[in-house]
Amino acid sequence: MSIPGIVALFYNEETYMSFFPAAITTMLTGLLLLGFFKPLKKQISHREGFLIVTLGWVLATLFGSLPFLFEATFPSFTDTYFETVSGFTTTGSTVLANVEILPKSILFWRSMIQWLGGMGIILFSIAILPLLGIGGMQLYKAEVPGPVLEKLTPRIAETARSLWKIYLLLSISQVMLLMFFGMELFDAVCHSFTTMATGGFSTKNKSIESFNNSGIEIICIIFMFAAGINFSLHYRLFNGKLKSFLKDKEFQTYSLILLIATVFIALCLTANGKPVFESIKNAAFQTVSIMTTTGYSNTNFDQWPTFNKIILFLLMFIGGCAGSTGGGIKCVRILLLLKMAYREFITMIHPHAVTSVKIAGKTVSQNILRSISVFVVCYLLLFIFGSLFMSLCGLDFMTSISSTAASLGNIGPGMAGVGPYENYQFMPDFGKWTLILLMLLGRLEIFTILIIFIPEFWKK
Amino acid sequence: MSIPGIVALFYNEETYMSFFPAAITTMLTGLLLLGFFKPLKKQISHREGFLIVTLGWVLATLFGSLPFLFEATFPSFTDTYFETVSGFTTTGSTVLANVEILPKSILFWRSMIQWLGGMGIILFSIAILPLLGIGGMQLYKAEVPGPVLEKLTPRIAETARSLWKIYLLLSISQVMLLMFFGMELFDAVCHSFTTMATGGFSTKNKSIESFNNSGIEIICIIFMFAAGINFSLHYRLFNGKLKSFLKDKEFQTYSLILLIATVFIALCLTANGKPVFESIKNAAFQTVSIMTTTGYSNTNFDQWPTFNKIILFLLMFIGGCAGSTGGGIKCVRILLLLKMAYREFITMIHPHAVTSVKIAGKTVSQNILRSISVFVVCYLLLFIFGSLFMSLCGLDFMTSISSTAASLGNIGPGMAGVGPYENYQFMPDFGKWTLILLMLLGRLEIFTILIIFIPEFWKK
Repeated sequence: MSIPGIVALFYNEETYMSFFPAAITTMLTGLLLLGFFKPLKKQISHREGFLIVTLGWVLATLFGSLPFLFEATFPSFTDTYFETVSGFTTTGSTVLANVEILPKSILFWRSMIQWLGGMGIILFSIAILPLLGIGGMQLYKAEVPGPVLEKLTPRIAETARSLWKIYLLLSISQVMLLMFFGMELFDAVCHSFTTMATGGFSTKNKSIESFNNSGIEIICIIFMFAAGINFSLHYRLFNGKLKSFLKDKEFQTYSLILLIATVFIALCLTANGKPVFESIKNAAFQTVSIMTTTGYSNTNFDQWPTFNKIILFLLMFIGGCAGSTGGGIKCVRILLLLKMAYREFITMIHPHAVTSVKIAGKTVSQNILRSISVFVVCYLLLFIFGSLFMSLCGLDFMTSISSTAASLGNIGPGMAGVGPYENYQFMPDFGKWTLILLMLLGRLEIFTILIIFIPEFWKK
Repeated sequence: MSIPGIVALFYNEETYMSFFPAAITTMLTGLLLLGFFKPLKKQISHREGFLIVTLGWVLATLFGSLPFLFEATFPSFTDTYFETVSGFTTTGSTVLANVEILPKSILFWRSMIQWLGGMGIILFSIAILPLLGIGGMQLYKAEVPGPVLEKLTPRIAETARSLWKIYLLLSISQVMLLMFFGMELFDAVCHSFTTMATGGFSTKNKSIESFNNSGIEIICIIFMFAAGINFSLHYRLFNGKLKSFLKDKEFQTYSLILLIATVFIALCLTANGKPVFESIKNAAFQTVSIMTTTGYSNTNFDQWPTFNKIILFLLMFIGGCAGSTGGGIKCVRILLLLKMAYREFITMIHPHAVTSVKIAGKTVSQNILRSISVFVVCYLLLFIFGSLFMSLCGLDFMTSISSTAASLGNIGPGMAGVGPYENYQFMPDFGKWTLILLMLLGRLEIFTILIIFIPEFWKK
């Protein structure tokens, strides 16, 4: 919070009067908590793990909203908290109709919380998820790409540091490239923050479309694509292991889905009379933006033909790779589900054959496969109940389902009433709180939060 | 085909000139096939089973369309085959804008093929599915309600006969009750045919709404509800085992979902200013009609609030009970998926606990659970690809997805362009053939047809 404070001082904005007090409040609370609560034991139990992660995110978002509250950026606490959660969860939905009138330091903090959220998620998904055994992510306990987790778990901080270095390096590279294509430093930093986090907040009302600059759009495509990849793979790449990077099955699935979706969307756009280059560029941009769950727009995709909208809608569910900053179900789970389905057919043809699901030559255990199935079931159930709750706000069908999918998958913009040219301001508070919950659920891989509501969780 | 021929003679319609030749053509072809192809061995292999079922349905629908073809009821072969497949699969989508101008014998045949399709499905799901091990239906191999399958398999014909007796008895009861409430004999028979089959074809353009008679609506609710229940359970009931009927877990799930959906839809309707009795009646009617995958309408539910439409949309996926004439995913699979999800949470809380999914006190094997997960995944994949294909016809989002869901689930009417007041005439041929395939896939529990397209299936 001191950094946007300094930004405020640099741009001669009075908002530093909110940032520094917010920073001090947060620091003092932290020190007080440290002083009052001494850990009773060194070992953290499974159940404590779930609670720590969930409460950690709630606390981070609450304190993160302080500058907005002190500054009265938003008309209500609901709006403030919605925007903050949308930030930290790297969703990128906004309740602001006009962001361009905001002080630069506020815009900076708004982008920075996405960047911090992205950092948190890299740590969470690479170091914590496999340990808690959530949604099949035990997969990465044994077979971890990059820094070997088995060995690194006692040194989580070190793993985090090496991955964050890559995160920082990629962010700085993007800033420089965006500036090379004519973006101003301030906008470049803010957009780099929200690209690497697959967040999607912009300093402009019309997102990336405002710049009307193909160079900038292509840089964003490249860095969104990078942000949707497992950061452990980036680690491998930085250690010169290009082959092992390219051979990763999830990376291949991710790239293949993006390629196919781009080709079909581009074909459909040209068939509808759009110029070829524009079709390919817009198809690639929106495909990558939606599937990585960034949520930038360079065109109003809500006006696209139904075929393209269905594809985008699907990509919202697929999401990025595990261990990336992207949300959604994640490519590795989709891949394993398809492999499970194929294996089932083989079993039906040869009822007595012994078959197994393999990834990169290694058998995936029944427990992991089951966990993945259940994850997807829960994801869809949340989507269903979320949509029902949203429809109670009197929204139309498309707005209800797309706002739910876009929040649960941490994307941001949806379609119809919450399309890329719209915002979430008009939603009643009930709808905003539903979406806040969905953003948190999606970001923490559902189970981390849901499990707390199971009575069994609280039994001794 | 001779029966509608006799109906034609009775009503002095010239259509008998189509029915009898169609009957003779079908019979002669059958005799020829019997004469030419002698079975090489007595045992039918697993793989042959899949082919026999699939080809059997294709042949039945092709020959079943002969009377329509001879009569030139429809402008094209596509339309003829669409209506016939919609009939045999008990879907109930129609390409006819005005059914009331058709000869009675044609309307009779149209309803009768649904009734025959329903009979076929009862046999298929109770006697054949468990043997082929499709989508977790091995469940009914061991624990079969009613006539014990293990013992009855050598006498499939006998099982079929006892279940068909119940089917016939229920159909006759419905005819009498519909007539009691003032429906004419002809309409009563046709509607009883399409109710018991959860088919949904009507002799009226506005379906059950045309009769404007609450008594008829309530009779339809009761018999649609009955048709959505496993016919083995009806068998138990007819043998006086009421307790075992009521204790069935799938029956309980089915009833509970219907009850909850009815209550919520009725509440939403009254909240929107509709009278209480009408709200409850319409809610119950449409809930039962959609979830049993019948597809009758007694009101234009496409005009309902989004909340209700989302609920109906979900019910399209859930469907009836296994072993009923209803389509969709089936309640028992939904129940087991939810139990799997709950078990997964318990495993996360107690990683070392040994847990299992039970139904009625018996452990369900891992293979069955896996098979069910895969079934649901394939169901959703078909829904996704079906919707994409439909959107290529230039349909809007709601029409694309609801026509797909309504065909795959064998319901009939969807929403928007294919709502209860609309029909499928306007669809381009490409769309109609996509839906024909979806109807067959849904009706034969997906795997039966999909498996034929796996290269492994054809290997020696």
